[in-house]
Parts: sequence; structure tokens; C-alpha cells
Amino acid sequence: MTRTAFYISDGTAITAETIGHATLSQYDFDIEHITVPFIESEDKALQLQRQINRRYKTTGHRPFVFHTFVDQSLASTICDSNSICFDVLKPFTNKISEQLNITANPVKHRTHSIKEHKYDARIDAMNFALANDDGQTMENYDNADVILVGVSRSGKTPTSIYLALQYGIKAANYPFIEEDMENLVLPEALKKNKKKIFGLTIEPARLAAIRHERYANSKYASIRQCRMELREVERMYKSNKIPFINTTHFSVEEISAKIISQMKLERYNH
Amino acid sequence: MTRTAFYISDGTAITAETIGHATLSQYDFDIEHITVPFIESEDKALQLQRQINRRYKTTGHRPFVFHTFVDQSLASTICDSNSICFDVLKPFTNKISEQLNITANPVKHRTHSIKEHKYDARIDAMNFALANDDGQTMENYDNADVILVGVSRSGKTPTSIYLALQYGIKAANYPFIEEDMENLVLPEALKKNKKKIFGLTIEPARLAAIRHERYANSKYASIRQCRMELREVERMYKSNKIPFINTTHFSVEEISAKIISQMKLERYNH
Repeated sequence: MTRTAFYISDGTAITAETIGHATLSQYDFDIEHITVPFIESEDKALQLQRQINRRYKTTGHRPFVFHTFVDQSLASTICDSNSICFDVLKPFTNKISEQLNITANPVKHRTHSIKEHKYDARIDAMNFALANDDGQTMENYDNADVILVGVSRSGKTPTSIYLALQYGIKAANYPFIEEDMENLVLPEALKKNKKKIFGLTIEPARLAAIRHERYANSKYASIRQCRMELREVERMYKSNKIPFINTTHFSVEEISAKIISQMKLERYNH
Repeated sequence: MTRTAFYISDGTAITAETIGHATLSQYDFDIEHITVPFIESEDKALQLQRQINRRYKTTGHRPFVFHTFVDQSLASTICDSNSICFDVLKPFTNKISEQLNITANPVKHRTHSIKEHKYDARIDAMNFALANDDGQTMENYDNADVILVGVSRSGKTPTSIYLALQYGIKAANYPFIEEDMENLVLPEALKKNKKKIFGLTIEPARLAAIRHERYANSKYASIRQCRMELREVERMYKSNKIPFINTTHFSVEEISAKIISQMKLERYNH
């Protein structure tokens, strides 16, 4: 039986989505997810109230509603529906206001907007990550917060971009290619910034599968080649005392969180 | 007076961070934010409990703690500290479990991990966005979910990448350059996929400022050039009935949410 979850806000609804997803992931029922951002008028709220009620009628289940309205009258309109309705920040602001005897002062678009603290740093970092992706230049390493290294397709690019866009961290990345393998050493530009280097590695079978999708049946994608390259880079990481992780079973979110912890990087999203 | 907030989890702590940030943004006090992911043992939890208590002693304020532990014994260890402690999903799972008479079944790493629903789609979409950034090829538009168009530096690249990485949406983007302006028409490859096109525009002064950072005092960055290009693309959007938004006052999160709504795109993060 499929239930419905609505994520609603007068802003992007990203906060409501994050909390709703994490909450509902703890239950086994199937969910149809509906995100409705930018509900900024009573008209739109009423329309949505009706949509929620229609869902209740057609499915026989009260939909879940996760919302982050600043305007309490819009919140009331939405929660007057036949739903299990959550104001997702209320439980926390209620307790804080009570315990500290202070009042919350909700302002629209304070999160996930251009007014957000250090928003520009995140966009700058993303431009940096793109300009310094895949070793296309080694001139900006002095300005990098971290330099990811690893063989082709070990996860450097998605991780660099995630670090930049989510956390405002200036992440460059440099690939070790087949030609380097004969005598694998750190290039001079990397040696100069050795403290910023973080290595990625991956299981050979997974690497071969990923490369195979790109260049099927190539030497590049062969398990033998993958094994050799990974053995060489891991040996080099160890001899240079470069911290590294195996990305095989981790998401970009997890890899990024581990790199930030280990390298003690500052998060500009705070 | 600066207060301290800890975001803690046995996973990435992204959910705890999101909720904590949004909650605390409603108060006016200064916050030092500390994220501590991957607390997976009693030892680490005890160490962190001591760190929280030290903060209380040095600042005179109980730190805020936002956590998402699956292991309740680790949660207790953390909340036994001198803090204002929140299990950020509890208020919601408690109510759902009570109202529906079902039990939550928390499993570690269900969000923000590689096991997450459609994780691979997000990585594929990001590779697609990078390969189809800035009009470098027009061959894959048949496979795109959306094609962003606009003048240079109007926000196409960050938005494409955010759509891909956050939502798994395959976003290509195509820039209109100065040479196109004389007689601005849609290239054939775009015409074929006209229903996928979404236009970005921006205020001339803001565009000039952004371009100026790249190429100071160039014709490219002049307000006159910016005005002319923006007038031409907006005229073209209108005559071709291409939906578009002005990105000047919006974050990539907001621009993305608006595009998803208007284009009725499927979010693969659900």
C-alpha cells in the first residue's frame, strides 16, 4: 500500500525534504514523495490543502506533511487538511525558546537562499573545482583547501564538486594515468602542497566495472590494468604518508565527510 | 556571546546539520558550529561527551546538540552531557509510530549512503552535466532531462551541477556567445529538443560585476555589452516561448527548485 508524503515550504522545501526523507526511511511502507516549494500565498496553500485531501480520499491514508512555513497562517491552512502534519522545526525551537526564555524570530529564505552565510564562497569553490578538475592545471594548488589524487574513475571529480558546492571547500583533483605508473612519484606541483593531498582508492573489480561502462573491453578497463594501477598508487600513498580511503562502499556524501574530518578542513557552509 | 552547536551522527551528520542550521537560524545569537560524523563506538561517544562538557565549562552555556543516532546507547552517552540535546528524528517517528501503531526500524546509513535509493542516478547525472557543460557537445540533448540556456556567467553551470548532484536530473547547458547576438536564433540541436529548454537571465549590473571578476575592464564585462546580450536573449526567450527566470536574487537551490517545478521534472532523489 503506497502512502504519500508532501514536503512543503514557502522556500525551497529542502529542509522539509531532508527531515521527511530521513524520518520515513525508518518505515517499511512505500511512499510517493511530492515536493511543493514556494507556497507563498493563501490561494496556493488552499489549493494544496485540497490536493492533500484528495490524496486522502483516493488512497484511504492520511498523507504525511512535512513543512517549514514561516507564515503561521499558511501553516494552519496546510495542516487543516486530512494529514499527519509536521512543522519540522517547531519541536526544536519550542524547546530552545522555553529553556533559554528567548523568542525565535523566523525569517523567510534564511536557509538555502543567496542571503545564506557564505553563499558566495560555495559558488567560488565550485568554479575552482571545475577549473582545477582532472589535473587540467596545476597552477592554483596554493589556493586549494584540498587536492584529491587517484587513478582515473576512482571518484575524484564527484567528490571535489560535492565538497565545493555543499561546503565551500576549494577542492582540486589530479589523476594518475597509465603513463605515470612505470615510476610513480608525486609531481613537483603536488609535492609543494603535500599537506593538502588526500588519496582515493577503490576495489579493482569496481573500478573495472566503472571503466568498462566508458570504454568497454579496453585495456584501460581490464581488471589486470586496474589492479596494477591501484597497487601502484596505494604503494605510493603509503611511502609518501598520504592519507587515503577506499571509496568502493561509500557515497560522495560519506567520502566528503571523512575527508573533512581527517584533513580538519573548515566547512564554509556553517 | 557565542554559543556552540554540535551536529553528531553515526553517519555523515548531514541530516543533523540541516535541521540544526535551520533551527538555529531563527535565533540571533552567534554560533560556533561543530560537525562530528561517524561516531560509531562507545569510546568515541564518551570522548565527545567530554568535549561537550568542556565547552559548557569554558563558555558557561550548555551547547546545543543535534543528533541522529540509530544506536540508542550512543545517543544516551551523548545526551548525558551538559547540553540541550535533540534526537532530531524522534519527534516525528514518535508521532507516526503512535498514530499508525507501527514501529520505526532505524537502520544505519540509510540516508546519504551508497545504498540510498537511486544513488547511481545522481552520479550518472553529474557525469552527464559535466560532459554537457557549456555547449561543449550538442550530441546528447536527446538524453537530457533539461537544457539550460543563457549568456556567459548567468548561472547555468552551478545550476546544472546542483540539479544533477542533488536530484539526479540530467541537465545540459548551452551558452549564447557574443558572436550569436547579431541574429540570435535557437541552434538546430536545441530546436529539436525545445520542450526541454529553460532560459536563465540576470540583471545587467550583476552580470557585469561577475564578468569583471574574470576579465576586468574587458568589453565582455562592460555594462553595455551585458545589457545588449541580456536584451537579445530575453527577446529570443519570449519570441520562442521559452520559460525563463531571472537568477539575480536566487541561490542555486532556489533556481533549481523553481526549474523543477516549472518544468515538472522528476526528482530522482526521492
